[in-house]
Order: sequence, then structure tokens, then C-alpha cells
Amino acid sequence: MAGNSFGQVFKITSFGESHGAGIGVVIDGCPAGLELDMELLNTELQRRRPGQSAIVTQRKEDEAYALLSGVYQGKTTGMPLTIFIPNSDQRSKDYDHLESTFRPSHADMTYQAKYGHRDHRGGGRSSARETAARVAAGAVAKMILNKIGVVVKAGVTQVGPIQSSTDVKNIDWSQVEQNIVRCPDLKIAKEMETLIKATKKAGNTVGGRITCHVTGVPIGLGEPVFDKLHADLGKAMLSINAVKGFEYGSGFASIAMNGSEHNDIWTTLDGQATTLTNNSGGIQGGISNGMPIYFNVAFKPVATLMKDQATITDTGAPAVAQGKGRHDPCVVPRAVPIVEAMAALVLVDHYLRDKVARM
Amino acid sequence: MAGNSFGQVFKITSFGESHGAGIGVVIDGCPAGLELDMELLNTELQRRRPGQSAIVTQRKEDEAYALLSGVYQGKTTGMPLTIFIPNSDQRSKDYDHLESTFRPSHADMTYQAKYGHRDHRGGGRSSARETAARVAAGAVAKMILNKIGVVVKAGVTQVGPIQSSTDVKNIDWSQVEQNIVRCPDLKIAKEMETLIKATKKAGNTVGGRITCHVTGVPIGLGEPVFDKLHADLGKAMLSINAVKGFEYGSGFASIAMNGSEHNDIWTTLDGQATTLTNNSGGIQGGISNGMPIYFNVAFKPVATLMKDQATITDTGAPAVAQGKGRHDPCVVPRAVPIVEAMAALVLVDHYLRDKVARM
Amino acid sequence: MAGNSFGQVFKITSFGESHGAGIGVVIDGCPAGLELDMELLNTELQRRRPGQSAIVTQRKEDEAYALLSGVYQGKTTGMPLTIFIPNSDQRSKDYDHLESTFRPSHADMTYQAKYGHRDHRGGGRSSARETAARVAAGAVAKMILNKIGVVVKAGVTQVGPIQSSTDVKNIDWSQVEQNIVRCPDLKIAKEMETLIKATKKAGNTVGGRITCHVTGVPIGLGEPVFDKLHADLGKAMLSINAVKGFEYGSGFASIAMNGSEHNDIWTTLDGQATTLTNNSGGIQGGISNGMPIYFNVAFKPVATLMKDQATITDTGAPAVAQGKGRHDPCVVPRAVPIVEAMAALVLVDHYLRDKVARM
Amino acid sequence: MAGNSFGQVFKITSFGESHGAGIGVVIDGCPAGLELDMELLNTELQRRRPGQSAIVTQRKEDEAYALLSGVYQGKTTGMPLTIFIPNSDQRSKDYDHLESTFRPSHADMTYQAKYGHRDHRGGGRSSARETAARVAAGAVAKMILNKIGVVVKAGVTQVGPIQSSTDVKNIDWSQVEQNIVRCPDLKIAKEMETLIKATKKAGNTVGGRITCHVTGVPIGLGEPVFDKLHADLGKAMLSINAVKGFEYGSGFASIAMNGSEHNDIWTTLDGQATTLTNNSGGIQGGISNGMPIYFNVAFKPVATLMKDQATITDTGAPAVAQGKGRHDPCVVPRAVPIVEAMAALVLVDHYLRDKVARM
Repeated sequence: MAGNSFGQVFKITSFGESHGAGIGVVIDGCPAGLELDMELLNTELQRRRPGQSAIVTQRKEDEAYALLSGVYQGKTTGMPLTIFIPNSDQRSKDYDHLESTFRPSHADMTYQAKYGHRDHRGGGRSSARETAARVAAGAVAKMILNKIGVVVKAGVTQVGPIQSSTDVKNIDWSQVEQNIVRCPDLKIAKEMETLIKATKKAGNTVGGRITCHVTGVPIGLGEPVFDKLHADLGKAMLSINAVKGFEYGSGFASIAMNGSEHNDIWTTLDGQATTLTNNSGGIQGGISNGMPIYFNVAFKPVATLMKDQATITDTGAPAVAQGKGRHDPCVVPRAVPIVEAMAALVLVDHYLRDKVARM
Repeated sequence: MAGNSFGQVFKITSFGESHGAGIGVVIDGCPAGLELDMELLNTELQRRRPGQSAIVTQRKEDEAYALLSGVYQGKTTGMPLTIFIPNSDQRSKDYDHLESTFRPSHADMTYQAKYGHRDHRGGGRSSARETAARVAAGAVAKMILNKIGVVVKAGVTQVGPIQSSTDVKNIDWSQVEQNIVRCPDLKIAKEMETLIKATKKAGNTVGGRITCHVTGVPIGLGEPVFDKLHADLGKAMLSINAVKGFEYGSGFASIAMNGSEHNDIWTTLDGQATTLTNNSGGIQGGISNGMPIYFNVAFKPVATLMKDQATITDTGAPAVAQGKGRHDPCVVPRAVPIVEAMAALVLVDHYLRDKVARM
Repeated sequence: MAGNSFGQVFKITSFGESHGAGIGVVIDGCPAGLELDMELLNTELQRRRPGQSAIVTQRKEDEAYALLSGVYQGKTTGMPLTIFIPNSDQRSKDYDHLESTFRPSHADMTYQAKYGHRDHRGGGRSSARETAARVAAGAVAKMILNKIGVVVKAGVTQVGPIQSSTDVKNIDWSQVEQNIVRCPDLKIAKEMETLIKATKKAGNTVGGRITCHVTGVPIGLGEPVFDKLHADLGKAMLSINAVKGFEYGSGFASIAMNGSEHNDIWTTLDGQATTLTNNSGGIQGGISNGMPIYFNVAFKPVATLMKDQATITDTGAPAVAQGKGRHDPCVVPRAVPIVEAMAALVLVDHYLRDKVARM
Repeated sequence: MAGNSFGQVFKITSFGESHGAGIGVVIDGCPAGLELDMELLNTELQRRRPGQSAIVTQRKEDEAYALLSGVYQGKTTGMPLTIFIPNSDQRSKDYDHLESTFRPSHADMTYQAKYGHRDHRGGGRSSARETAARVAAGAVAKMILNKIGVVVKAGVTQVGPIQSSTDVKNIDWSQVEQNIVRCPDLKIAKEMETLIKATKKAGNTVGGRITCHVTGVPIGLGEPVFDKLHADLGKAMLSINAVKGFEYGSGFASIAMNGSEHNDIWTTLDGQATTLTNNSGGIQGGISNGMPIYFNVAFKPVATLMKDQATITDTGAPAVAQGKGRHDPCVVPRAVPIVEAMAALVLVDHYLRDKVARM
């Protein structure tokens, strides 16, 4: 009801605030007997970590975490698995001037109106710091996907007006971690990096796009009608801070197409049903068909600028939202592991849900 | 789990198949004491009805319905409200040749694989006929929205390459029901109609886009983190047959913008907090801020063509999917009430959820 | 939220009123590929049917039903399975005098207060007629249990002060359907029948107890902590009209026992772990241990008497609740299939839930 | 699905093991703006604490806790409220000899079978230490009940064969905290204490009964059909470790009653509808009627004895379960606050659920 849980079988509950004790997640429904790959968990948290490069926020969180429950002798027990990441390097004082000020395009006004009061420090619960919980839970989901051969890869394919190809057939995902922008095209990554640095210098921010590609998905994941696989992927992505749009397969481009060019023709390859094209993005009728799944996610420019903006206070008085604190000039480099985490959570949940679909 | 329910407080469960007894919906959680507006229910079902114009499928359903439960003396009782729409004018024989054939870009293969067998007649449960249940439930949701001054309007703003403006500030929604395409721009509607007729004549299909605009939304709807208002709207839209993309507010266009141009500056108007621009699409931090909500939905071209297509059978043998039956050449004219219905369902659910957010 | 659904994987939603169009149930999550045993469904509905003998209500319902969705060629498709039982032989006029009167120990006052108005005819939704939906869904659950060797048997072991043994090891369940009281002890059944007839003649009613016994339960059903198998069984039973108590295994008698006599000692039988006694009632730590499950359910005397009772109207004025209509003098003979149905629903739900507990 | 959450609006998720890092609870859906009463939270945890008297387990937990999220300046924010209670004074070595041994009437065998392996230390997740999470969450629920005048009181009314009256009209609840047994009758409390001490000395254990009484409940709480108020109370109680039975109002005694003596006759008192008797236990048709709610809960004797018991290992070999460790000879004195906590959780959840029942 209050919206802090996600998933039905592999169900996560996220908690914590930007400047509180820390960020945590309870996974209820993680199957017993999974060996925890702590290196993978560390890697994912490091990929999302602030302060990792010159183009992201300089808040320094070491992302040390504690396993509070659900593991015995390195394996999950089937009990709730809880990961807690204490906050460090908070500078709550940076936010004192914002206690009664509504920052433009932030959640300040809506939280105040809905709840009557709010923890304004660092955005409280509305801060993207919450996504650390998603990445931690997503890492556990990836451990399960690893067992069944599902690979989730995402990368930045647009920053401001600079685009790299979204043709997933031809993307070399191994390049993503080779540059600080996390664009799979190193040449374009360089251009993006230059743009982000210039934007930062100007105290401004810029939007971006992430493309995600999932291979090895078993046939049959997804439920008809409301919980179509792409509907759950879409909700997962749209729930990430700053996301404004989602498209999968042929996406918005399909609007201008005719059925005769858009339809994916069935054939067989090595005795397996396969399609000649993949405009369906690996999903038909809401259910995976064994072809790669791919989708794009649009991120708006970060709302916090390093320049002053006119605004109002919670009593309607004119005010200035000052350009202070430490923030990302562009969210997408750090959002790549978040997109992968949310995709992994959806896929594991539907993988488990599918186990009860047939006699 | 099996995905046939939607919503948490105002929870609907949809049932029925294209060529079975009919399509129905149970609404569990409709507040007691709502006077049913049967004319509104009729109107909405008629707007979605096949056979309503020359550019839609010619299946003739009269969409007569039965209220099976939950109403006494014209008012809801707080008990499950069930609406059942019997099927009529089925021509199941039209589908005999498809019993073991996988139609391209349909759900035939995925249902077969997931469930081991399937009701192939008219696509069974994967048929867009299921959306009659959504429209019926959405009509009840609209009755509640009417009480609180929320107005949901949608219209077709693209068919194939032909576009009308998506600038919701300047759209005259009253035009939508004045033309069979349901485009708010009558001149462009004519062009779209011509394109759809030509496409139909060629046995082909074409995609489209629907823009939706919601005014009068109370401040405070939506839950932080996973159940952000736009995340639930996105899932709702993506769960509609043939949808490939969703964007709200500035959407995909925000990617290329800077924060300084994208941010919506707060000011006051008649003592109320309001923003000078509305790139946020009426939602900040996942919670409505009182400004209009608007979003776009991308629909792919209908997969059923009136021409033969190469395919395979369920045993992998080459086959031909024949161009038979009665189908829409373009889905968006009839999808307008479906988009509105799903939006209404999300808004009513969050309106009710918000009632328990504060002491 | 509104409480008309039960179960998590095998999830039923019940709808309908005593004097409305009928009673129905949607099963969402019934696995695909189950062959429907229509004879079993008929049998169960007949066992619950009013008018079946001289000691139950004489309302004549033939319990004809319609399968509205989810079945193709006799097998479940994995889609929502809907069963609808139209009402017949309603005498709504019998209830005209009760429109504004609160019958003692009925739900009249509480429904009126909670919902502002109510369908008073035959008790509306609060009528035990709703249990037809449970029995129909429970019959489908039994079809699944039949496949895995689980047998659910219930019988009447007390009517008023007259008791038969609750020692499940020694009960001959085949006797239950041999007498109209549904007591497994034919001699005591006769006494019970005499008591019920005398009670009826006096215009009065009497309470009863049902004992249920389940064999063949796989080890491992039930979830720790809140969804313990017996907690879900208890909730299922307590949700049946007129139930006032539930105990499983040693139940209330365990209070007076010492641990040394109560503990079930583990041993092996044919290589299988088994216990020498079964005070645990087949459930330890909320999880089935492979031993038989058994429990008792207490039913209060039916609140509707065939004699006048003092009461008040909805405005607080003194009134008389007249002894009219057709009612059961004792609910337990017809409640036996309801208890079995609810037990079957819990067991199938947990059987399916258990499938995702391990890697 | 995995059963570690309880409630629908006021939803708690419990985590942690007996000998892990600690026990915690996330409350998702606690209304914003509730001032936390830390003294109440402390008091409740102390009431449940081991080592509080001579008749309970001597494990020494100080029950210090940390508020990890959801509170700002002493008031709830509407965000997940997380309470974590680190474990201390664990003696995991006490359990080394049990790693592969199935203790009689414990969850060892069922956890092993269901999950493939288990954290055997102190019973792991199946330990009653988990109830600390319930008591912590229940304390927050009580803070809400305090605001609306609902008072939840429980006490021990039976230990072994020694009973005190369960006639709630005449119980003086203020006596409960005046004796270490928590029986409201001081004279009988003394007898119970003597019995428990003798039982402990003999290395044995004994069962008990708790009676709970709730006053000030608003009319209208509870949902018809499956989520009847007493059905949710019953599930809540049955989910507590060692509980074997639940009855509310007239309970099992109603079986032997006639309707004419059992029915609660409506009258008015000071213009309010009220009943002359309260066999209904304050609930009619599953919905509270404003009269006091009361119920009894049966607890079996604790399974851990301080004497050796024959058993088997996880490979079926004969073994001895040694009488070691620190355990309660009778669980009811410490279970009183747990019963109250679970009752408070159910009532707050239904109080919030009721807010959306009407237009």
C-alpha cells in the first residue's frame, strides 16, 4: 500500500533515508540454498557508488554493508535476507537552508503536502540514495540469474543530444565498464564525458538514456493481462528517480511502421522456434519468447543545479533555492547498475512466478 | 500472482476469453454508497465497441452487460461489484486453421509454451476483447473521479507518420468524439482516417499514439519509491495490448534538455503553489503536485494482417498464417477509452490509498 | 483490502449476494492443464445445497452453475477460472419486514454502520449462501489434491451437548455421508438428528463442532512466522459464517499437559521420519511434517430463530425480529463440505507456494 | 508469499534469527505525523524480555534497539519505520550438539526438509526471539490505538490445570503487571507461579492460556467474507509460537448453546445501539459492533525440556536431544505482550482499512 515493496515472490522492501542511519532492504522470498557471491554484491554497490569518478557526485560513501539476516554458512536459508548500508559522509547542514524551501522539480512540495512534514535533509526518502537498496537486492537477483544463464547488460546510449546506437545486436557491452560514462561506444563516450564536464562547470545538469539488453531469458516468463513482463519492467524503470519514459522492442518507432514490416516472422533454428526479426523485444503477449529482451529508459536532467533558482517556501513566500551540496550533473552513468538491478528483480520474480503456472 | 488483478484498494480482477462465455470483471474495494451512472458505463463500452465505424473491426458485439453483484437500489454496497459482458457474434470457425499455427507477433507461441495448451479461438485470453473488462471497471472509476472533479481525456495524436500536436495546453479535447479516429485535431483526423482506410485496403495495419491529459488531480496522490504515480500509470498503459512505450511530462524529449530549462519553477497563483512550466507532468517524486498530468502511449501496428504470412506450427513445421477474420487496421481509435479507463483505475486506487497516509 | 479474496497463488475472489443474480468465484492462479472433474464439482455443491434433507433449510437451490472462463476442452488454461451459480427460489418478500430492523446476532447493524446502507434481502452478502463460492473453488482445489494424494475429510463430532469421538485415528470417515447429520458415528448421529429435529420444532437452533482430518500432506507446506500452515487454516475456518473457535492437534487440551507427555518423539518407519504421537497435528513450526493434520471447528447456534425476538430498528426504535423465512436449525451438517473446501484451498495454495522455496 | 509480512495497510515485515545479528521489523504504511512514544516501546519490549523474572528463560537480552528509518524529529514521516534489536548474550555453542539432531516437537525437521539446510543455532528463525519484532511493531500500533481510545489488555488465565476466570466483565486488568505470571487474579497467580517453579525444577514444561480484552473499538472494523475481524485476529494469534487454539466471544462453549440463549439482544443505551449480552465478542458478521472484543488463546507446553529425549538425526539415526540451554518452563507470562501486540496490529490495520470503505 505505502509502496516500499516490489515483487511478488522475490519481494523486496526498501527502507531508509539519505541522512538517516542508512539504507536497507529486506528480501522476503529469496529461495533457500543460494550461495551468496559477495564479490558480485560489492561490485554492484561500487558501480552505483557516489564519488567513483569526476563526473558524478563527490559524496563519499564507502558502501560498506551488513548482512543482518537470512544467511547461514554463506547460503541463503529461505528466511528474509536483510542488507543494511549505513550512511556516512552526510553533510546535513548543507540542507538547513532548505528546511522550508521547495526546490524546483524535486519532491519537497509533494512530500510536505502529502505527509504534513518531511525529512528535508538530502531529500530524505526521495533521494536517489534509496537506489542503493535496489542495487543490493538486484545483486542477489543477479546471483539467481547467473545460475540459469540470464545476462542483464545496460549502458548509456544518450547524454543530452549525443547518442550512440541503440541497435542491441551490434552493441559491445564489454565496453561499458571501460569508460566513466558507461557508454558502450568509447568514441561517443568521450564526447559525452566532455559534455557532462562542461555542463557541470556551468552549474547545470543534462538528461540521458540507458539501453538495457537481456539474453538467455527462458521462454514463458511474464503473466498475461496486467502483469505482462514488459509492464512490470516498465514500472520497475519508471520507479527509478528521474525516469520519464520507457519503451521496449521497437518502442515509439513502431508507431510509424506497418504490420507487414513490424511483424516478427517465426522460423526454426536448430529445432528451436525463433524469429527473423525482434521488434517484439523478446516479449509477446506479455510473455518472454526466448529472444533477447531490450528496452530504453529516459532520464530527465537532475533537478539540483549549482546555481540559484527562484522558488517559494512552504508558506508560499518567494525564496531562492541555492545551488549547494554535492550532486550529479548527469544521472545516467551511476544509473546503469540501477537499471540492471531493477531488470534483474523483475526477471527473477517472474522466473519464480512461472514455476506455478502449470500442473 | 497470475496477473489478472490490478490495483490495491480499488482492485479489479478481469476474467474471460474472446470466444468463451464472455468477459467480466470483479471490482473488490469499490466504496459503498456510489450511485451507479449507467449511462456513463454504456457510453464507455460503446466507445470501445467493435463495429462502431468503418475503420475498426467489424465484429458486432452489442456490449450488453449484466451487473452480477455489489449493487442495491442503484448504489454500490461495498461488496464486490461484478460486471459481465456475454460474447456474441463469435466466429470461432474462422480460427480453426490456426489451432496449431503460431501467428507472427501474437501470443500464440508464448501461451503454448507457458501453459502447455491454449484456447486459440480469437486469441483466447490474449485477445484485446479482454479490454472490455477494463473499460467497464474504468467507467466505475470515472464515476468516483467525477465526484472529486478529476477529468481524464485521451485522444489519438499519431497514426503512422501523421501527427497532431501533443502540447496538452492547446488541445481541444471536445473534438475527440467528433471524428472516428478520435484525434483532437479534425483536419489531421481526416488525414489519419484516409491513411487507415488505405492501410486496411492493402490488408495491412499501422501503429499509433495516444495522448492522455488529466486535470483536477488532488495534490498528494502516489506513493514514494516503487508505486510512484507515473510508475503505476506506466504499468497500466504497458499492460494494454499492443503498447510498446510510455512517457509522461517531458518524456523522452527531456533527455536532450538542461536542468535549467527543464526545471519547473514554483510560484503562487491565488495563494496556491503552482509551477510556471509543467515538464514534471503533474508528478514530482512520484506524487501528484496538482498540475495537469499528461502522458503519451505508443501502440505498435496490429499483428493480424489480411494477407498471408510465413510462419511455423507448434511442432516447428513451416506454415502459412492466413489473412482471415475481422480485425482493426489500426488499434488507437478504439484504444482511447481503454487508455482513459486504465488511467482512471490508477487514479482512483491512489486516491483511496492516499486516505491512509497521514494520522 | 476489502476482503473478498483468499489465497496467494491459488487465489479466489468470491462475489454475489443471497438474493441478487447469484454467487460466483474467480480462481486466479489455477495451474494450467488440470482436467476438470465435473462430477466432483457437482457432488460438493450438492453436499452444501439447501433442501437436501429434513434437518436443513428448505430453500430449494438446484446449484446449477456456469463455467464462465478459464477452461478449454475440459482442461484449465491457466487463465482465471470463473464459476457462477445463479440464485433461484429466492423469496425476497420474506425479508421486507427486516429492511430497517437489526436481527439479533446477525450482521445487520454492523453492515449498516460500516457501509451506510445494505442489501437486507436474505442477509445480502453476509448470508451463508456465499459459501457456495467457497465450495465450488474448493472442489477445484480438491482436484489438484487428488493428483498428489492428499485426502481431506470432515465430519460432525458434536451437536449441542452430544459428542462423538474426535480421536481421528479411530474415526471411520466413510460413515459421514451415510447419515444426514454427517457424523462419522452412526449411533451418535441418530441422537444428534433427534436433537436437531426437536430444536427445529421448538423454533430454536443449536451449535455444533466439525472435526477435519487431512492425510497424505507432503512435508514442507506452510511458511514460517506469519503464514504458518495452521494459522492459514485457522483463518480459513474462522472466516466461515458462525465459526467461533479453532484448535489443531492437541488444541486447548494441550494447556493442561506437560511437555514430557505432549512432545511427539521422532523415530523412523520404513526409513521415513515419523513421530510416535501426533499432538503436533501434523504441523511443526508452521510447516507440515508429513503426519496427518487434524483440527476442530466450533460453530455457534444459528442466529435466525423461528420465534420472535426483541430488537431495535436502525433508528434505535424498539422492534420485533419476527421468526420467518427458511433457515437451518443447526449449521454443521451443511458446513462439512465448506470446512473441507476451505482446508483444500489452504493446502493447494501452500502446495504451490512451496514450489518456490528452494533453489 | 514467504510469509514474513503481516497486515495490508499497516504492513510489517519481520526479519532476523535467534543467533544472528539481531531481530528487526519494517513497518510500511505507518501514517505520517504519529509522535513516537519511546517509553511505551521500551515498556513493551521489557515485558517480553527474557530474564525478567525467576519463571522465564535466563537468557539476558537488554532489548536495546535502533530506529533505522522513518522518523524525523520524533514523528513518523510516512516512510518505512524500521526497528532493529541486536542480539546479545547468545550462546550458540549450546546448540552445537543439535546441528543434525531433530528436537521433538520443534521445527528442526520441517525446516531441514523444506529448505535443505537450516540455521540450527537457537532455533534460528523458528525461535520465539522473532516475537521481539512483533512486540516492537505492536508498540507502534498501540500508539495509534491510544489516539483513538482503543485499549488492549491481556492476561494469563490458565497454567496447566490451574484456571482463573475468563469472564472479561469481571477481570481487573490492572493486576496483570502486579505478578510475574501476569494473571489478573493474584491469588491464583500465586498457585500458577508455584506450579511453574515446580515444573521447571522437574526439567519439564507446562501449557497455558491467555485471555485478551479490547475496549473502545470503533464500530465498523473488519471486512466481510475472508478478512473478518476475528479471522484476522485468529490468524494473528495462531501465528505466535506454541499456539494451538483460538476462540472468541462464546467460543467453543457456544456449541452446546441454543440460539435463544446465545443471541445478543439489541437495545439502546444513551441513544447508542448496544447488546444486552456479548456472546458475539464484539464482532458480528466479521465486523466490530462497538462492544468489547475478547478471545482466548491456547499455548502448548514448551517443547524444549531440561531432560534428555529420544529422537533421530537428519539421516534417521537414533539420537538423544539433550536437555541444555536456557528456556521458559511456561511460555504464557512472556506471551502476554505478544498477544497484545498482535491484537494491536490487527486492529490498527483494520482501522486504516475501514477508512476506504465508503464514499
